[in-house]
Amino acid sequence: MVIRSKHLCRRVLENQHKLCQFLQQQLRLCSSNAARPAAAFANQDEDTSIKITKQFTSTATSLLEPIEHAPNVGQQFSYSDLSVRLAAPHELQTKPDVDEMGFGKFFTDHMLKIFHHQSLGGWQKPEITPLENLVMHPAAKVFHYAVELFEGMKAYRGVDGKIRLFRPDMNMKRMNLTARRCGLPTFEGLELVKCLARLVSIDQEWVPHTECASLYIRPTLIGIEPTLGVASSDSALLYTILSPVGAYFGPKSTGGVSLLADPQYVRAWPGGAGDRKLGSNYAPTIYVQQAAAKKGLQQVLWLYGEDHELTEVGVMNVFMVYINDHGEKELITPPLNGLILPGVTRDSILELSRSWGQYKVREGKITMKMVKQLVKEERLLEIFGAGTACVVCPVQSINYLGEELHIPTLEQEKPVYEQLRVTMTDIQYGKMDHPWALVID
Amino acid sequence: MVIRSKHLCRRVLENQHKLCQFLQQQLRLCSSNAARPAAAFANQDEDTSIKITKQFTSTATSLLEPIEHAPNVGQQFSYSDLSVRLAAPHELQTKPDVDEMGFGKFFTDHMLKIFHHQSLGGWQKPEITPLENLVMHPAAKVFHYAVELFEGMKAYRGVDGKIRLFRPDMNMKRMNLTARRCGLPTFEGLELVKCLARLVSIDQEWVPHTECASLYIRPTLIGIEPTLGVASSDSALLYTILSPVGAYFGPKSTGGVSLLADPQYVRAWPGGAGDRKLGSNYAPTIYVQQAAAKKGLQQVLWLYGEDHELTEVGVMNVFMVYINDHGEKELITPPLNGLILPGVTRDSILELSRSWGQYKVREGKITMKMVKQLVKEERLLEIFGAGTACVVCPVQSINYLGEELHIPTLEQEKPVYEQLRVTMTDIQYGKMDHPWALVID
Repeated sequence: MVIRSKHLCRRVLENQHKLCQFLQQQLRLCSSNAARPAAAFANQDEDTSIKITKQFTSTATSLLEPIEHAPNVGQQFSYSDLSVRLAAPHELQTKPDVDEMGFGKFFTDHMLKIFHHQSLGGWQKPEITPLENLVMHPAAKVFHYAVELFEGMKAYRGVDGKIRLFRPDMNMKRMNLTARRCGLPTFEGLELVKCLARLVSIDQEWVPHTECASLYIRPTLIGIEPTLGVASSDSALLYTILSPVGAYFGPKSTGGVSLLADPQYVRAWPGGAGDRKLGSNYAPTIYVQQAAAKKGLQQVLWLYGEDHELTEVGVMNVFMVYINDHGEKELITPPLNGLILPGVTRDSILELSRSWGQYKVREGKITMKMVKQLVKEERLLEIFGAGTACVVCPVQSINYLGEELHIPTLEQEKPVYEQLRVTMTDIQYGKMDHPWALVID
Repeated sequence: MVIRSKHLCRRVLENQHKLCQFLQQQLRLCSSNAARPAAAFANQDEDTSIKITKQFTSTATSLLEPIEHAPNVGQQFSYSDLSVRLAAPHELQTKPDVDEMGFGKFFTDHMLKIFHHQSLGGWQKPEITPLENLVMHPAAKVFHYAVELFEGMKAYRGVDGKIRLFRPDMNMKRMNLTARRCGLPTFEGLELVKCLARLVSIDQEWVPHTECASLYIRPTLIGIEPTLGVASSDSALLYTILSPVGAYFGPKSTGGVSLLADPQYVRAWPGGAGDRKLGSNYAPTIYVQQAAAKKGLQQVLWLYGEDHELTEVGVMNVFMVYINDHGEKELITPPLNGLILPGVTRDSILELSRSWGQYKVREGKITMKMVKQLVKEERLLEIFGAGTACVVCPVQSINYLGEELHIPTLEQEKPVYEQLRVTMTDIQYGKMDHPWALVID
């Protein structure tokens, strides 16, 4: 009797998200594209355990590449050890409307946690728990020396009702490279992806039922050893929270962003760690972002060196489309020279563009002198940022040394950025079958 | 009756540290210099409320300079609002022996916390509580974007039994400059110093009874707003923990340190924030420190630019003593050009040296070419690091592009670094009356 009621409770808890999904579907649809046969829901497997479909193998090839761990990392964690503690009904949060989502303001009901303790032999068993506060010693290294890193990924609800991740192998690879760069333990990417997929599956009703939005996935790795020496941390916590997100720059920002390009501020430099997704690359940018805002500008265009080369824009990679000296249309982005974050969207844009063959594609230096000259000669067509949060973000103007440069990104008839955005979102939202999309069930 | 027993309890709690101090004194003395009249204790004022003695005015002039706060900082906190919740007897920690202290491994019984919430009008009332874990939302900005900064100060138990701080005004000034650099709220330095003095006073028995050690003070300011946008934090926590510390590099490191000088690693760069005490300046150095350790070297000598100029050593400022081209003995350290942390010890060394007039003192560029040449011509006398943790730290060798340069710092008859160390510690431990020492009672 006791056992039966326990089972019943568990069943209710595990399926609670599905009970109201038809209602939610009606309430939330904000995009006509999101309309899809209700049958997609009806056919859903009742078993909530995660299954990764056949697409997995093709997209995740690099997840299967062996990664070399430092000896002191010790034992690895495994998805098969994952434990799940579901939130009680009264702990479940109300889901926000798409319009009020913003970016990273609301969080789902559950989170993933995996501890690493050298004294306990390495990585511990992964656990999914209700979203809860972290409890940490005030001397934890993360609070003092920024021993921390993160990734940004998204889960998309496709037009077929299926939920997809986008190239998670790329995030896992970069996360391990970043971990190594700040003395945090590395891990098997495939195991983390499986855990993340399970987490998303449990909070699946938080994946917005619209193409205007998605579920942002924030894997975070922090050093928690409570000692004040500037050294690697012998304890760490890898956790992941999920946040339903709308447009990164808010609903009214579709008109293209204005940039401050001030050579007195430098984001990254040779010999530094600007090519890794460390928390430490972000704190110093806030002040500069404020300086831009004071001038009424929306984002920072990061310059480097004596010739003021463009490196990144805001927290995105930067792309330019222009007519080159041979009269050809060319897409250019700075090369991965150590100053540039190796963006997943960046890589995807380059791959897609190269596969299309419609314009030249080049990784090369872009200087402000070149931008000015191209604007003057009306050969500059588009500048846009690219990143997971926004896919692509068109640039309308650059404020450079007191001069306002108008960038005609929004005035092109068939802009490259728009073609890229449509293709990327078609892949992400399942309108196009593509090995980059990882369906989770 | 109830009131009386409550008062009694409070009295016992507030004075518990003093009850065992004579015993502790006997157990802990590790330095003959620390021997001092027991009468110093007997005369201690029983009132635990903090009093800052007459020295305060002279040392803390710059604390009284008005600081300009951004409008959104709102109301300031005040020492007069400080509340104190003392640890219960069973919560009190055992104090470590000087030999096992190390750096930042043990913490005292209490901590200071001051919250800042824009939504509540600014800084909240300061509170001293038992040392306890921080409880924080996993989306807090400090975990993702390194919205964090700190200071390093020390409390010294003088030969007269009095406890002193060293130039706290300098730390407050720098902490406010750093806060501004990463969008965290500024505060009135004088009010924080008073709160810190009270905290030290409550945990006064943790200030080691020896000149081999001191009580390290770690004011920390972190952004705790639980949203994922890369932006300034509208909630922050300024907290302070205390740690009894011995020698930073361990008891066996008095022989001078060996350095790795590898130009492929760069700590700070023009247009960055290397001159502010942000957490983000430290995480990227851990990997490089590990690279040094792998070569059997103890610290990193940070170089910058094409001419490989010396900027800092480990987490310290760097100084060199040499015979200049005019045959004069000269002390040189890199200027505050944006790449250098404006160290309190650095400033003190310059001021003391200039006041002595025994050798030339200069802030100027030091390149590796210059170091090599001076070594070759036997004109290089000393290289040493300087910082709060270690005061001065002599350098014995530099591994530069595969070459091992021997630095004869330890072989000088009357080395400058030793003269500086003695004077600084004489001021800190009250052997010399000096306006830099702030006696707290």
